[in-house]
Amino acid sequence: MKNVAELPIGMFDSGVGGLTVLKALRQRMPCEDVIYLGDTARLPYGTKSPQTVTRYGVQCGAELVSRGIKLLVVACNTASAMALSALREAYPDVPVIGVVEPGARAACSVTKNGSIAVVATESTIAGGAYQRAIHSISPAARIVGHPCSLFVALAEEGWIDGDVPEAVAARYLDPVFNPASGAVDPVIPDTLVLGCTHFPLLAPAIRKVTPPETVIVDSAATTAETVFEELTLLELIRPGSGCGTTAYLTTDDAPRFARTGTRFLGTPITENEVELVDL
Amino acid sequence: MKNVAELPIGMFDSGVGGLTVLKALRQRMPCEDVIYLGDTARLPYGTKSPQTVTRYGVQCGAELVSRGIKLLVVACNTASAMALSALREAYPDVPVIGVVEPGARAACSVTKNGSIAVVATESTIAGGAYQRAIHSISPAARIVGHPCSLFVALAEEGWIDGDVPEAVAARYLDPVFNPASGAVDPVIPDTLVLGCTHFPLLAPAIRKVTPPETVIVDSAATTAETVFEELTLLELIRPGSGCGTTAYLTTDDAPRFARTGTRFLGTPITENEVELVDL
Repeated sequence: MKNVAELPIGMFDSGVGGLTVLKALRQRMPCEDVIYLGDTARLPYGTKSPQTVTRYGVQCGAELVSRGIKLLVVACNTASAMALSALREAYPDVPVIGVVEPGARAACSVTKNGSIAVVATESTIAGGAYQRAIHSISPAARIVGHPCSLFVALAEEGWIDGDVPEAVAARYLDPVFNPASGAVDPVIPDTLVLGCTHFPLLAPAIRKVTPPETVIVDSAATTAETVFEELTLLELIRPGSGCGTTAYLTTDDAPRFARTGTRFLGTPITENEVELVDL
Repeated sequence: MKNVAELPIGMFDSGVGGLTVLKALRQRMPCEDVIYLGDTARLPYGTKSPQTVTRYGVQCGAELVSRGIKLLVVACNTASAMALSALREAYPDVPVIGVVEPGARAACSVTKNGSIAVVATESTIAGGAYQRAIHSISPAARIVGHPCSLFVALAEEGWIDGDVPEAVAARYLDPVFNPASGAVDPVIPDTLVLGCTHFPLLAPAIRKVTPPETVIVDSAATTAETVFEELTLLELIRPGSGCGTTAYLTTDDAPRFARTGTRFLGTPITENEVELVDL
């Protein structure tokens, strides 16, 4: 029987956005093997109901657990916000780590004025998971949650610079960071959480419409750190050195996964590395 | 047994976009009953593979056929482009009408210079269904197919006027309608087909970036006319007068369906008119 520490880490997202988390994990733990599943047949999760996202999330978890993993990373904010407890209940023997709590932790550690803005998908904001996670760490924090669904489509389309993403970012974020003078609440957030794994690609456009002192936080690096701490605690860090492998699974259109995934991962994914699965 | 002419027309789309077709159908045939299914749990179809779209389309067809319908309208360009023959094979007793062929027919009847642009989702353009449908009517037509995936997200978000949709439309369409001087092919299309049921909402923004003489064609009205002709031919027009009823089915989040659907239909849909179904 394979030693548990030798097993891969499982990771899933609704699509390719979670590859920004994989990239951070690879940098923090280059020796680990990873199986990444993108549920592209049913993306996006961000406009769907908690019931549907939970069902999809548990199905993704089942696929990865059936292949033998030592830890499960929910590399999708929407699924982290909605399906985490269902996943922990369904797979009690596998530690499950989401991206919301690490993102909330990072935000609380950098804010100076206690005012934090969170941009995410419609479902993540409506569900209130970030608000709860931040308040459980900093009960006095002031939180502005703002759904920015179009950022997902922009990142998927590869329109990450130029006029369009800046115009979209301004339309979403001006009410938060540049409110009309005389607006009721003058405490401009000093911290902005990118609460969707697609959004780091749009950070340059977002940066242009936020005040220069705003700290932009994404949960990828903090999540990778959390995974490292958890595996260390459980004594499940993969022994030895050398490069870990990555297996890619997708529920639809392997060539498209490879093409758009390359943009998110920052290094090439080839079509024949991607396995099509049916959930 | 209910007379076949008394049965409703079934209609499906990946989401709420097909309600633009329902609107046209209601105007042409106010007496007919309609069952409309929006597969919102799995939208969008436009970035998915032919295999997946076909599977989803046949499942939508099964749900509607099981409820008793006299004709099936595929009110989604992507599904029309990919799943029509599979649907006809699966349900040989029910006439199946898509939106691609009516749209192609409308374009061929209005173009004067034989140059037609088609904007649609990535999958619809890549599959070539519009190109084939237009060429089967006008073999000499010159066709420019252009994927415009972000239009779907804009329409869903309700951003149908202002700077952002115009900037998006310009980025997509300037290469087609305002090519750099000295470009190889100078025959600017005089006809633009909106090959996605979401796009009619963005017609005002699209209009601003196309030359004034461009005719913008959407397939909703032509599809309604095709349904009328088919039912007349089959002697299945519903007898009598008065208003037909509409039943709404959705695979996810009835309140969201009602909210966004109202925008596409142009008349209110209330949450309790929408039935949640599991495919």
